[in-house]
Amino acid sequence: MYSDIKAASKLKIIPLGGLEQIGMNITAFEYEDSIIVVDCGLSFPDDDMLGIDLVIPDVTYLEENIDKVKGFIITHGHEDHIGALPYVLKRVCVPVYATRLTMGLIERKLEEHDLSESVRRKVIKFGQSVNLGEFRVEFIKTNHSIVDAAALAIYSPAGIVVHTGDFKVDYTPVFGDAIDLQRFAEIGHKGVLALMCDSTNAERPGFTQSEKTVGKTFDTIFSEHADRRIIVATFASNVDRVQQIINSAYKFDRKVVIEGRSMNNVIETAQNLECISIPDNTLIPIELLKDYPDEKTVIITTGSQGESMAALSRMATDTHRKISITSKDLIIFSSHPIPGNEKPVTKTVNTLLAKGAEVIFQDVHVSGHACQEEIKLIYTLVRPRFSIPVHGEYKHLMAQANLVKELGISDENIFILNSGDVLELNGEGAEVTGKVQVGDVLVDGLGIGDIGNAVLRDRQILSENGIIMAVMAIDSASGALLSGPELVTRGFIYVKESDAIMDEMREIVQLAAERLTDKGVRDYNKFRSVIRDELGSYIWKSMNRRPMILPVILEV
Amino acid sequence: MYSDIKAASKLKIIPLGGLEQIGMNITAFEYEDSIIVVDCGLSFPDDDMLGIDLVIPDVTYLEENIDKVKGFIITHGHEDHIGALPYVLKRVCVPVYATRLTMGLIERKLEEHDLSESVRRKVIKFGQSVNLGEFRVEFIKTNHSIVDAAALAIYSPAGIVVHTGDFKVDYTPVFGDAIDLQRFAEIGHKGVLALMCDSTNAERPGFTQSEKTVGKTFDTIFSEHADRRIIVATFASNVDRVQQIINSAYKFDRKVVIEGRSMNNVIETAQNLECISIPDNTLIPIELLKDYPDEKTVIITTGSQGESMAALSRMATDTHRKISITSKDLIIFSSHPIPGNEKPVTKTVNTLLAKGAEVIFQDVHVSGHACQEEIKLIYTLVRPRFSIPVHGEYKHLMAQANLVKELGISDENIFILNSGDVLELNGEGAEVTGKVQVGDVLVDGLGIGDIGNAVLRDRQILSENGIIMAVMAIDSASGALLSGPELVTRGFIYVKESDAIMDEMREIVQLAAERLTDKGVRDYNKFRSVIRDELGSYIWKSMNRRPMILPVILEV
Repeated sequence: MYSDIKAASKLKIIPLGGLEQIGMNITAFEYEDSIIVVDCGLSFPDDDMLGIDLVIPDVTYLEENIDKVKGFIITHGHEDHIGALPYVLKRVCVPVYATRLTMGLIERKLEEHDLSESVRRKVIKFGQSVNLGEFRVEFIKTNHSIVDAAALAIYSPAGIVVHTGDFKVDYTPVFGDAIDLQRFAEIGHKGVLALMCDSTNAERPGFTQSEKTVGKTFDTIFSEHADRRIIVATFASNVDRVQQIINSAYKFDRKVVIEGRSMNNVIETAQNLECISIPDNTLIPIELLKDYPDEKTVIITTGSQGESMAALSRMATDTHRKISITSKDLIIFSSHPIPGNEKPVTKTVNTLLAKGAEVIFQDVHVSGHACQEEIKLIYTLVRPRFSIPVHGEYKHLMAQANLVKELGISDENIFILNSGDVLELNGEGAEVTGKVQVGDVLVDGLGIGDIGNAVLRDRQILSENGIIMAVMAIDSASGALLSGPELVTRGFIYVKESDAIMDEMREIVQLAAERLTDKGVRDYNKFRSVIRDELGSYIWKSMNRRPMILPVILEV
Repeated sequence: MYSDIKAASKLKIIPLGGLEQIGMNITAFEYEDSIIVVDCGLSFPDDDMLGIDLVIPDVTYLEENIDKVKGFIITHGHEDHIGALPYVLKRVCVPVYATRLTMGLIERKLEEHDLSESVRRKVIKFGQSVNLGEFRVEFIKTNHSIVDAAALAIYSPAGIVVHTGDFKVDYTPVFGDAIDLQRFAEIGHKGVLALMCDSTNAERPGFTQSEKTVGKTFDTIFSEHADRRIIVATFASNVDRVQQIINSAYKFDRKVVIEGRSMNNVIETAQNLECISIPDNTLIPIELLKDYPDEKTVIITTGSQGESMAALSRMATDTHRKISITSKDLIIFSSHPIPGNEKPVTKTVNTLLAKGAEVIFQDVHVSGHACQEEIKLIYTLVRPRFSIPVHGEYKHLMAQANLVKELGISDENIFILNSGDVLELNGEGAEVTGKVQVGDVLVDGLGIGDIGNAVLRDRQILSENGIIMAVMAIDSASGALLSGPELVTRGFIYVKESDAIMDEMREIVQLAAERLTDKGVRDYNKFRSVIRDELGSYIWKSMNRRPMILPVILEV
C-alpha cells in the first residue's frame, strides 16, 4: 500500500532533544520547504550542571531554516513539552498550536516573558486539523496526567506519522472523554508510515490504572481520618488529581486551601477554562484556615518531590509562614518520586513523621503513561510500517523496541534515534541520512547559553575543594616584590582554626616569589605556574586535597 | 521478674550515631565505671556536604570517659559498622572484638592506617563471650549480606540487652549456619531488659528470601546465555553472592575474573579465612581473560551502584584499561540501588544498553535485612521488656515501633531515640535522662574535622555561581590607586565570550575605587563592602546571579 504513494520527496523526522533522557522534548518534521515542530520542552539540570536553573534545546537547525518553519504543535502542558517555548520563540518566532488548557498554560509563560503580543497562537479542538505548508496536523484526544493531552496525526505527502504525545488509556477519565481509540483505528486503516510512541513505562507489564481509582483511595482515607487535618501533596499540573481531592473534601464536608505558587497558577487557569469544577464555598483562602476546625479542612500543596523551596517542605521545616505541622495532621503524598528525588522525598517524610504527623507516601498515585499492554494496543490499532520509540531514556526506548518486535515489526523497521539524527522516510524505506546540530543550552538566572563546560568544570573544582588566591604586587620597573603575597581562601579550610597551615602556605609562596624575582623572571605565566605547582604539591602531600590555586600578580 | 534484679545502678544506652540515617552506627553501653561500644561505622556524605569524602561520628563522649571504655564490639564487617574504626581508634585506643571475617576486614583497615601494631584485638567465635568490666558480651550467629554477622547479648548487672546487629533469618544460608534462633529463645527465657533490633526493612511485609534463591537465578540465567560473556556487578563485601556466581560459573564451565579493588580485597580476605570456597583453576587473573573464548568467562565486578570510578562504570564508558563492552556481553546487576543512587545506576544501564549489550538489572538480588515477619519472630523469641528500634531513618524506626505495638509492647516501653540521647534503664523502668555531644565529623582527604559549616556554605555558593575577585594595589602613604582593579573570575561566566560584561564590571569597580580613594577612605573593610555591594547589585540586576565577590586590596 505504501508503494502507491508517489511522493516527490522524503519526509525527514529530526528529534532535536528528548531521546537521551526524559525531558526537553522537541522534534522537527520536514518535507521540502515545510518544517513543523512538535513540542518545545525543557529539562532539569543533571547533578553535574552546578548552579544551572534549567536546560533548553539548541535550536540552531530551526534558526538556520527559519523560512521553512511553519509553527509549533504542542501535545500537552507539561514543562518537558512547553517549558522551552518562551526562550525558543525569541529566536524562532512562529505560531503555536495547542489544545485549550495547554494553551492556557503556555499563555502564562508568554506573559511572564513579555511575549503575549508578539506570538501568534491558535487553540485547536480534538478532531480538528491545522494546515501548515505541506503538512496537515490532526489533534486526537488521549489521556494523561494533565487535562487536554493530545496525540497527533501528521499528514505529509510522504505518508502519515502518528505521534502519541505522552499518553495512557483511561476508559474512565476524571475529566472529558476517554482516549479516541476509534480515531487511532481509522487512521491505522488509512495506512500509517510511522508511529512515534511514548516509552516512559515500556518496561512495565500490564495496564496503567485509571485516574479514578485514586479518587476511591481518597474517599477511603478521608473516611478513616475524620478527626485529622489532611494535607495532600501532588504535582501542580495534575488538575484531575486536584479535582478528586476536592470531590472527597466536599463529600466529607471539608474546606480546601490550595497552597504553592505553581499549583495556584495551574488551578486558576483550569478554572478559567472550566477544566475543573469546584463546588461553591469549598475553596477558601489560606488566611481563613484558622476560622475552621482542623478536621474540617484539607490543604492541597506542592512539594511532593521534596523540593526544598516548595510549600510542603517549608511546612515540614517550620519555615512556612502560615501552616505548621502538628501530630494531628495526616499528610498524603499523592505522587511517586521522580528518579533522582528519592532522597529529598524521604527526608521530607522523615521530618514530618518526627513531628508526630501520620504520613501516607505509597499507593495514592497512578502513572500518566501507558504500560506495555496499552503500547501494544496502540500499535495494533495504528499498524505503522516503522516504529520510532520516543520519550524515554535508552532503556525505555529499547523496552518499547522489544515489545514492538513481539508484535511482528521487524528489527530494521524500528528506529531508536539519537537527538540530531535525520531520519528520512517514505513508502519505500527509511534510513538515518545525517545529523544536525543539537545540544543542551544552559539557563542560569537571566543568562542563556553563556555557561559552558569550562565554567561547569571550574564550579566542580570549586565545589569540591574551594579556592586559594595568592595575590602580590610587583614593581614593573625593577621586577621586585612590592607587596604580598597575600593568601585568601574560600571553601578550603576554616582559616580561623588553621593558622599553622596558612602560615606554611604563605611561606611557600613567599619563597617561590622571592626566588623568581631574584632570578629576574618577568614572564608572569611562568611565575604563576611555579606558584601553582609548588603550593599545589604541598597541599596534596599534606592534606590530599586539590583546591583551585589562583596566583594574581599586579604590576605597579 | 525484672524487679528481682537489684542492681545498684542503671544501665545507660547512648547511641552516638546511626539513628537519623542508615550509616554511622555506634552505640555506647555504660554501667557505672564500664563503657563498651558496639560498632563504629562511617556514613557517606549528604548531597550538601560538597567535597567531603566520608563522615565519622563525634566521639567526644568516649574521649572524655576514656578510662571507662573497655572495648569496641563489632557486629559485622560493613562500612557503616567498621568504617570509622581507624579514625576513632587513634583517639580512643581500646581493644576490638569481632568474629573472624569481620576482624579480617578490620585488619586491612588497620594496616592502611598503620595501626596494626598499636590496636589490640581478639577474634570471638559464635557462642563465646567476652568479659569487659561490668559487662559480658555474647556473640550469637545471625545471617546477613556479609558472612560472619553477629547479634549480641549484652549482660549487665541491670539486665540483658539483645542487639540484633544487621540481620535476616536465612534457613538455608550459603555459608555457615542459619541464625541461632534457639539461643535467642534461651536468652528470651532468661528475661531480657531491652531489644535493639534492625529496622531497615521494617516497612516491608513478609519474609526476606534466602540468599540461595539468587543462586538458582544465576543458574537459570547462565544456562540461557551460553553464547555470551557474562559480567556480574554486585556489592564488594557480599562474599556469599560471589560464592554463588562462582558456583554457577564452575557448573557451566566458565573461568572467573574478579575485578575492582575493594572486591579483590574482600575476596582475598575471605579466601584466607576459608569463608569462600573456590574450585581450583576457576579464578584467573584479568590478564589471561583474552586466552579464553568470551562465552567461557565470567567477570565479577564492583560498580553495581553506578559509582563513577568503579570498574563497571569504567567498562561502560570505555575507560577501563582491560575490558571493553560489546554487543556479545550480558551484564547482570545483582544488587538494588541504595536510595540516592538510582540515577547513576540508570545512567550506567543506559550506557551499557547503548553499546548493544544485554542488561538484567532487576530481580537478581535479595536483601540482607529482616522484613516484618522476621522482626516479629525475633521479638517473640526474645520477649524484651523495652523495645529500642535501631538502624534506620525515622520512618523505619517508626515502622518497627508500629509492628512492636501489634505484638503487645506498650507505647511507653518503646523508645525511638536520637543520637546523643542517654537512655537509663533497669528492671524498674526506662527514661531518657540526658544528652551527650554527638555530630558529624567530616573527612576530606587527610583532614578530619577541619571542614565545618562555614566552609561548606562557601563551597555551596562557589558551586552555584562561581567567584569574582577584584584585586587592586593602593599606595599606603597617599591612599591612591596604584594598580588595578584587575578582575579574575572562576565558575562565573565564560570570560573569552563575555568581553562586554567583563568591561562593564571592571568599570563599576574602577569607579567605586576611584570614588573611595578620592574621598580618602582608608578603611579597607568599608572599601571592600562598597565594591561588593555595587558589583553584586549590578550582577543581580543584569543576570539574576549571586557569585561570591571577593575584593582584595594590597597596600604598597
